[in-house]
Amino acid sequence: MDNDQCSMVNKKNIAILGSTGSIGRSTLEVISNFSERFRVTYLTAHRNMDLLQEQIQKFKPRAVAVLEECNASVLKKLTNGSTEIFVGEQGLCEIVSRDDVDIVVSSLVGFAGLKPTLQAIEAGKDIALANKETLVVAGEIIMNAVKKHGVRLLPVDSEHSAILQCLRGEEINNVERLILTASGGPFRNLPKEKFSNITVKQALNHPTWKMGNKITIDSATLMNKGLEVIEAFWLFGLPREQIHVVIHPQSIIHSMVEFKDGSTKAQLGIPDMKLPIQYALMYPERPLAPYKRLDFSTLQQMTFTEPDYDKFACLALAFRSLEMGGTATTVLNAANEVAVENFLKEEISFASIPRLVEEALETHTPKHNATIEEIVRIDAETRQRVQQLSATTQ
Amino acid sequence: MDNDQCSMVNKKNIAILGSTGSIGRSTLEVISNFSERFRVTYLTAHRNMDLLQEQIQKFKPRAVAVLEECNASVLKKLTNGSTEIFVGEQGLCEIVSRDDVDIVVSSLVGFAGLKPTLQAIEAGKDIALANKETLVVAGEIIMNAVKKHGVRLLPVDSEHSAILQCLRGEEINNVERLILTASGGPFRNLPKEKFSNITVKQALNHPTWKMGNKITIDSATLMNKGLEVIEAFWLFGLPREQIHVVIHPQSIIHSMVEFKDGSTKAQLGIPDMKLPIQYALMYPERPLAPYKRLDFSTLQQMTFTEPDYDKFACLALAFRSLEMGGTATTVLNAANEVAVENFLKEEISFASIPRLVEEALETHTPKHNATIEEIVRIDAETRQRVQQLSATTQ
Repeated sequence: MDNDQCSMVNKKNIAILGSTGSIGRSTLEVISNFSERFRVTYLTAHRNMDLLQEQIQKFKPRAVAVLEECNASVLKKLTNGSTEIFVGEQGLCEIVSRDDVDIVVSSLVGFAGLKPTLQAIEAGKDIALANKETLVVAGEIIMNAVKKHGVRLLPVDSEHSAILQCLRGEEINNVERLILTASGGPFRNLPKEKFSNITVKQALNHPTWKMGNKITIDSATLMNKGLEVIEAFWLFGLPREQIHVVIHPQSIIHSMVEFKDGSTKAQLGIPDMKLPIQYALMYPERPLAPYKRLDFSTLQQMTFTEPDYDKFACLALAFRSLEMGGTATTVLNAANEVAVENFLKEEISFASIPRLVEEALETHTPKHNATIEEIVRIDAETRQRVQQLSATTQ
Repeated sequence: MDNDQCSMVNKKNIAILGSTGSIGRSTLEVISNFSERFRVTYLTAHRNMDLLQEQIQKFKPRAVAVLEECNASVLKKLTNGSTEIFVGEQGLCEIVSRDDVDIVVSSLVGFAGLKPTLQAIEAGKDIALANKETLVVAGEIIMNAVKKHGVRLLPVDSEHSAILQCLRGEEINNVERLILTASGGPFRNLPKEKFSNITVKQALNHPTWKMGNKITIDSATLMNKGLEVIEAFWLFGLPREQIHVVIHPQSIIHSMVEFKDGSTKAQLGIPDMKLPIQYALMYPERPLAPYKRLDFSTLQQMTFTEPDYDKFACLALAFRSLEMGGTATTVLNAANEVAVENFLKEEISFASIPRLVEEALETHTPKHNATIEEIVRIDAETRQRVQQLSATTQ
C-alpha cells in the first residue's frame, strides 16, 4: 500500500447532489477543512458548468452528473473529456448507489431532490439532507425507507440541526414542543396591503442568510418555515400541535426544544450553513472548526415575537396541509414551487403566491399512504393546474 | 404489606439540609408535586422554628436537626416532643448518614454546608448541591470523595443545571468554553464612584431572582458569579480559561456551552429555582411539571454585555483565586462571608466587600492538597483576620 492509499484509509466518501448551489459550495468548504476525513467521490450540478469544472479540478471526483444533455456537452469540452459524466435523473440515481459513496449530501432544489435521495437511502447510504422538499412531499415513504435500510438521515437545515443538537441525550417522550425560529424575512414589518407591490429584487434581499433564489423567496413568504414545520414533523415524529414557530429576526437562536419539565434548550450560532453541514457530516463528533464564533459582547440583543399568520398565509397553509395529511403537503409544495417560479419571472405578484397555494390545497382531496408514483403524478398535476391558475392571476 | 407501605415502594428518601431557606422551601414544593416519587425523611433548619414546625406537620419527617440547643428547646415545645430532634453539626452529620436517605439536598448557607455534605458523600448518598461554598472551599476533596464513593453530585444552581443540561449527550472534550450568565444585579448600571453609598436595602433588591440575604448581596457584588465560576471549575473539570461570564439582565438564558465546532447550546427558562431542583432530583427524567413556561411572544428581548471587572472586583478576585489555586478559594469565600455579614450589619460599606476580600487573598500563601482540617483552620483564621480588618474599615 503506498502512501497515498494509506492516507485515504478511513476517509468517508461523499457524493454531493447539487454541488454548485449554496449548500453544495459550503459543503465543499467544510470538506476542504477536513480533507483528512473526507473524499469527494461524486458531484452533480444543474446549470453552472464553469463552477462544476473548477470543483472537478480541485476535488477530483470519480465522476459527475448533470441533469441536461446540453450541459453535459458543455462540461465535456471544459474538462477535455477527462471526467466521466452521467446525465439526467437516472445519472444521479446511478451515482448515489455506487459502492464508493458513504454519505450523500442531498442539496438539490425542490421536488427534484426526491428520487435521488430515496434511491440513496435504498442503496444504504447515510444522508445529509438539505433538500427539505424531499420530506415535505414524501415524508412517510422516506422515513419508512430510512427505517427499513437502517441509514442515518441527518438534517442540514440550521433549524433542524439545532433541534437535533438540543435533543442529544434527551428522550423524545420528554419533549413538550419544538420551537422553530424564523428570521421573519425582509417583510416582517411591512403592512399586508403593500405585499402586492413587492418586487423580486426586494424579496431576494434576505436580512440574515445568503441563500439560493427559491429558498430566499420562501423565506420572504415564510413558506420556508412552513416547509420546515413539515420537515420537523417527519424528522422528529411529533404531532403538529407540538411544533411551534417564533419570529427571531437576529437568527442567532437556530431553534429550541421545550421539555415537559418546563426547561427549554436552544442552539445558537452565527448564521453560517457550514456549522450544520459539519455537524451532519461529523455527527456525533464536534471537531474544532475555523468558523467565526458568536461574540456575546457584541451580540447586544435578541428579540422574539409571534408570527403573523394572516400576513404570512403560507405558514398557516403549511400547518393546514399537515392537518389535511396524506398528499396535501405534496400539493402545498408543488403549488408553491410553481408560484415562486412565476413570481421570480415577474408573472405574478408576491401576494399571489399564498393565494395560488391555497387554491391548490382547497381543491385537493388528500390521498393517504400514497406510492411514490402517485406522489409524482399528484405533483405533476398540481404544477399544471397552478400554472393555468397563474396565467389568470396577477 | 399494607397499602401505606406498598405505596412507598420505590419512593426516594430525601433529607433536606436547610429546609426553611429559599431552596429548601422550593424543594419541598417540588416534592409536593411528586409525592408519589419522594418521601421527606429528614429536615434541618437554622433559625425559623415556626416554619420548621409547619414543615414537620406537613411532611412528617422521621427526625429533624437544628444547629443550636436553644432552638431545639423552642422546637420541642412547638412539636410537643412528637419529633426526634438532633442538635448541632454532629446532628446534621448523623442525619445524612442514615439508611433511610437516598438523596441529600444540600442547601445550607455558606461554609456550614461543607462538613455535612462531605459526610453525606462518604455515606454514599447522592447529592443535590445548592450550597456552592462546599465546592468553593474544598472542591478537590469533595470531587475526590464523589469519585471514591461513586455518588452522584448534581448542581441545583440554575447556571450549573443549565450547563449540565447542555452537556447531556455531549463529550466534555468537545467543549470550547462554558458561558455562565449573570443578571448583573441591581447595580449593573450604577457608576463605580457611587458604590460606597449603596444601602443594604438597595443591595437586597435583586431585579430577577428572589433569594436569601447572603446570596442576594453576592449577586449585587457579582461574587455569586465568581463562586459559580469556581463551582463550575470543579463540577465540570475545565480550566478557568474555558469558563466565561456574560451579563444577561433578563436571566432567561441560565447558561451556555460553546463547543469546539462553533455551535453553542443554551438552557432557558423562567427564573424559578423549582426547575433546576426538579432536574437534580429527577435526573435524567423530565416529568411534566406545573411551573410557568417561557412565553416567547411576551419575552420580547434578551440582551448581553461583557461584565465590568473593574466595577465588580469580586468577580475578578474569584478568577484570581482560581489562578492562585489551593486554599486561595477557601480564603476568598471566608473573607467574603465575613464582609457580607458586616455589610448586612451596616458596619462596612458595599465598596469595602471586595477590598476586604482582596486584602485577605493578597496576604495568603495558598496551600495545595490541603486536608479538611487545614481548610477548616484556614477558614477560621481568615474570618478572624477579616473581622479585625473590618473594624478599621468603613
